Amino acid sequence: VIKVLIIGTGAIGGLYGAKLSQAGAQVTVLCRLDYEMVKKNGIAIKSLWGNFHFTPHQVLKNLRDYKEEADFILVATKVLPEILLPDLIAPVLTLKSSIVLIQNGIHIEQPVKKSFPDHHLISVISFACVKRIESAVVEHTDHGRLVIGDFPAGICHKTSVLIKLWQKSGVPCEATANIQLERWNKLIWNASFNPISVLSGGCDTGEILSNPAAQNLVKNVMQEVYILAEADGFKMAPDVIAKNIAATKKMKSYKTSMLLDFEAKRKMEVDAILGNAVTFAKSKAISVPYLSTLYALLSCY
Amino acid sequence: VIKVLIIGTGAIGGLYGAKLSQAGAQVTVLCRLDYEMVKKNGIAIKSLWGNFHFTPHQVLKNLRDYKEEADFILVATKVLPEILLPDLIAPVLTLKSSIVLIQNGIHIEQPVKKSFPDHHLISVISFACVKRIESAVVEHTDHGRLVIGDFPAGICHKTSVLIKLWQKSGVPCEATANIQLERWNKLIWNASFNPISVLSGGCDTGEILSNPAAQNLVKNVMQEVYILAEADGFKMAPDVIAKNIAATKKMKSYKTSMLLDFEAKRKMEVDAILGNAVTFAKSKAISVPYLSTLYALLSCY
Repeated sequence: VIKVLIIGTGAIGGLYGAKLSQAGAQVTVLCRLDYEMVKKNGIAIKSLWGNFHFTPHQVLKNLRDYKEEADFILVATKVLPEILLPDLIAPVLTLKSSIVLIQNGIHIEQPVKKSFPDHHLISVISFACVKRIESAVVEHTDHGRLVIGDFPAGICHKTSVLIKLWQKSGVPCEATANIQLERWNKLIWNASFNPISVLSGGCDTGEILSNPAAQNLVKNVMQEVYILAEADGFKMAPDVIAKNIAATKKMKSYKTSMLLDFEAKRKMEVDAILGNAVTFAKSKAISVPYLSTLYALLSCY
Repeated sequence: VIKVLIIGTGAIGGLYGAKLSQAGAQVTVLCRLDYEMVKKNGIAIKSLWGNFHFTPHQVLKNLRDYKEEADFILVATKVLPEILLPDLIAPVLTLKSSIVLIQNGIHIEQPVKKSFPDHHLISVISFACVKRIESAVVEHTDHGRLVIGDFPAGICHKTSVLIKLWQKSGVPCEATANIQLERWNKLIWNASFNPISVLSGGCDTGEILSNPAAQNLVKNVMQEVYILAEADGFKMAPDVIAKNIAATKKMKSYKTSMLLDFEAKRKMEVDAILGNAVTFAKSKAISVPYLSTLYALLSCY
């Protein structure tokens, strides 16, 4: 049996952990916030892929209580400065454990890779509308595709095993040998619309695009991300900006995840989405005034 | 007797109109919000220069009721796109009327100058902590200096008359033959600290300066204002940025006027403080990414 340990069993960790369990994996969850509820009742998954109940193999309040050797340690926490992933993972990491990061942002793999250079590291991007609507209840309302690859590049056999598990339970998965390019491709939207939605006083995507100055700002931020990706060795499609704008215009207006976090007074992933990009720009002596401004403003929140 | 008509009898118009009345001028006020109260009771001035009661010569609800010929038409409204000053002034303007603008921002004189090119136009910058604390009550708690000059430049005799009136009632006045340079000098602080205080989620000056990214943003915005002033023909002191930062650090932390406006859900002077500068930059093909970003974000509010 394939053993999975989920660290960060919120909406994303709950949904994708549940799907691995559905596919036959033995899934243990670390669950601090909802520990009592999940221990007693498991997690109710209300998903467009079908509702079901997820009973974890084991529910942990503390990783010290994990006595197994996980094949996959799946991290689905937010990326926040106060969460030191290497410290968190170290006690449960064994030689056979692959580390799987389902997280937002750019260059988020580097601290883990640096601490555990010899471990297999899988990087996953999720495109899902999913939230924890109450204690031990996860609601998945739209999308849900995963893009999966090894960090820094490639797709090894063990990664294919993970992909097959998810596919078995109906999760749309896309394997990529170039996960970092995919992260830049996602960041170009996230680094522009997410911060602007918060800093504009709470505009949704439609409101941002209908204000010429704000739409222009979106494009200027995207242009900087494009240049950074190129400096990082990843060339995006030349029409990526126009396509992102057009695709967002076509969709129904909606509030970004960062705006929803802000409105719910949850922490925002400012460093993963902006800080790492600004730090990288500095290391390459590339001027990114638009990204820097958004970052400086959000760093005050 | 010197006849003054005050348009926009809020805190600034109330205080400085009252001081002109104290000095012997015949001061009529246009007063929409507090019309009934002011008509009945006048305006109570609670000032660090001494409390007193200001009984206007006439209280107007509508400028059509003004039958005099004003020597000075003193405009102390906010600078907002929906206030079309030329339309407002036109009905009461006579050959002998000087137009006096006590307002914030840069290039705010231009629409008036364009509409009335042959009229004497006086531009005034106020440095006062003053607010309307309740209907017909103005509280002046700190500072209060005026910097006064003709637009576009110079100090003509009639301007000196106005200055002498204010000086007679104890208002510190500074005459300048280069009012536009003084506006740029004030803007360098206003265009940085005001927007950043709002967009940072409500930071006071101390909080902005104690965050390295935010302090850096302040400096970058100031640098852009410096360059714009130069392109406009006004050379600021080379150490103006360092001096502004140092002076702000020395003062007790406080909330900017734009932040106070925002928190009180009053309209913010986004165009006077940022929009005009961004428009000017565009006309000179100067790139101002920091100012543009602040402007784009605030234009969504």
